[in-house]
Amino acid sequence: MRIDVSQAALLLAAHDNILILAHAHPDGDTLGSAFALCRMLRALGKKASAACGDTIPPAYDFMRQGLEEQAFEAEYIVAVDTADIKLLGREMRDAYAGKIGLCIDHHGSNTLFAADTLLMEKSASTAEIIALLFAQTGVALGSETADCLYTGLSTDTGCFRYANTTAGSHRLAAELIEAGARIEQLNKVFFETKTKTYAALEKLAIEGMKLFFDGRFAAITITREMMRLSGSNEGEYDRISTLPLQIEGVVIGATLREMEDGSFKVSVRTSPSIDAARFCARMGGGGHPGAAGCRLEGPVGKALEELKGFVAAELA
Amino acid sequence: MRIDVSQAALLLAAHDNILILAHAHPDGDTLGSAFALCRMLRALGKKASAACGDTIPPAYDFMRQGLEEQAFEAEYIVAVDTADIKLLGREMRDAYAGKIGLCIDHHGSNTLFAADTLLMEKSASTAEIIALLFAQTGVALGSETADCLYTGLSTDTGCFRYANTTAGSHRLAAELIEAGARIEQLNKVFFETKTKTYAALEKLAIEGMKLFFDGRFAAITITREMMRLSGSNEGEYDRISTLPLQIEGVVIGATLREMEDGSFKVSVRTSPSIDAARFCARMGGGGHPGAAGCRLEGPVGKALEELKGFVAAELA
Repeated sequence: MRIDVSQAALLLAAHDNILILAHAHPDGDTLGSAFALCRMLRALGKKASAACGDTIPPAYDFMRQGLEEQAFEAEYIVAVDTADIKLLGREMRDAYAGKIGLCIDHHGSNTLFAADTLLMEKSASTAEIIALLFAQTGVALGSETADCLYTGLSTDTGCFRYANTTAGSHRLAAELIEAGARIEQLNKVFFETKTKTYAALEKLAIEGMKLFFDGRFAAITITREMMRLSGSNEGEYDRISTLPLQIEGVVIGATLREMEDGSFKVSVRTSPSIDAARFCARMGGGGHPGAAGCRLEGPVGKALEELKGFVAAELA
Repeated sequence: MRIDVSQAALLLAAHDNILILAHAHPDGDTLGSAFALCRMLRALGKKASAACGDTIPPAYDFMRQGLEEQAFEAEYIVAVDTADIKLLGREMRDAYAGKIGLCIDHHGSNTLFAADTLLMEKSASTAEIIALLFAQTGVALGSETADCLYTGLSTDTGCFRYANTTAGSHRLAAELIEAGARIEQLNKVFFETKTKTYAALEKLAIEGMKLFFDGRFAAITITREMMRLSGSNEGEYDRISTLPLQIEGVVIGATLREMEDGSFKVSVRTSPSIDAARFCARMGGGGHPGAAGCRLEGPVGKALEELKGFVAAELA
């Protein structure tokens, strides 16, 4: 059943021993929402803990600071920022499918897999919905909670750059700053820092970026040699794939990454006039309207030529 | 004399035929503030226009839309976002030195060169001070004004990433969104797009970036040859100067830009542990705690060595 903020607050108040689940491949919003909610429930005198099916990256370690482990048998399960039970990861899904009491989410694609769902599609982040629960229950925002919620809010809005950002997003940011969120440190970590390995990879990628079709198509190739030289990792390849479309005039940006078997994993980003999912489907791939992917056979020259053929057809 | 917002509003109300000056090498904050103030004064029934000693880059053209030319003899001159009379550029300085009635600014280094100065050092942007004048005078924020002020606010805070961002910055952003600021388009232009000339300059800059002192100091040099090769412009140099400090571990980032006379304009960005303004003051410059600048004599090898000497002393 879909419920509103006050109903969700009543449900939480009626339960104890609450386990909060973040989605797998965790990001700032699912973790920030989970740990903020955990702090809220403990402030209300309940036993609560937050968990994730995947390892939590070190950048988010601060969220757990001061939250002591609590041993309890989970009586009520809450999933946050999770549009589908599958997104909890295999382990959590196997353990909790059919047992999720409440889901708190902002994804329009939410499958309503929980017994009750607090779904607010216009919220830029789940963190904004958690903040409403704090207001509803009267729990004050401490600085640790403010850090968690600011992380969710800022990472899901690209630090207030993305089109999903609302007046409400900015008003919450103001409240969180007043509650002690350390925005300088958080922004530095999440938006201002390039790891040395990312910086090295980016340098190689930008040096090798090529433009075609009067600058409407830009492509970056990441070879295994470039990965080795830069020492870069998986998450860093994702960030590289945003670069080609940033160039003025480019409407299709592609990043071709060489896999161990010599084939290429292709990430495609498009401007709103072109549907990336439809474009990639023609090459056997899929994804979202603005970001999609596919696989192409190597070597690199062959993969790029094949891709250029599909781009030529798309731009024609 | 230093005055407050209500006194500034009274001064503006008491005058007509008002010329507003943006600083030379104009950025989003000086232009957004100037054009928003111009719109406010016209809404109050006055003749007003905004001017800049340098050509206004095309990205800011939207600020003038719908503002018809008004012919008048300037009776009151207002400088915005201008810390020193010199920053107006030679032409404006020669024409108006000693004649600036009011300066509205947020730079702590303001030399109080105007007859009256509304200086709010804790504002992240001059746009925030202009917004206070709208509130004080009761002029409603139209969508064109909201676009101007959002541009000033967002560009001076790095889209709410920089440490100068306050709760008030976010509250104003919320108000501007509600007043119709087209944040999606503005953020795309100012934070998501690299012009071809910027991309070309960035490529050269990243290729030439050097790290020193165990990676704690990073420096980029922009020579006149690099400017010529990339075809880049003034505003694009400013953006380059954020790159060195983004590298993990760097605490002082510097960008040395070769001027026509062969000297170097140095932009310094520092992590919170180091006061950039104090650091640059030792080299005869000044600025903000996180971002400051100075001039050094060329050639480039000499300028970089001199800078490294000051960095070594700072890091010691």
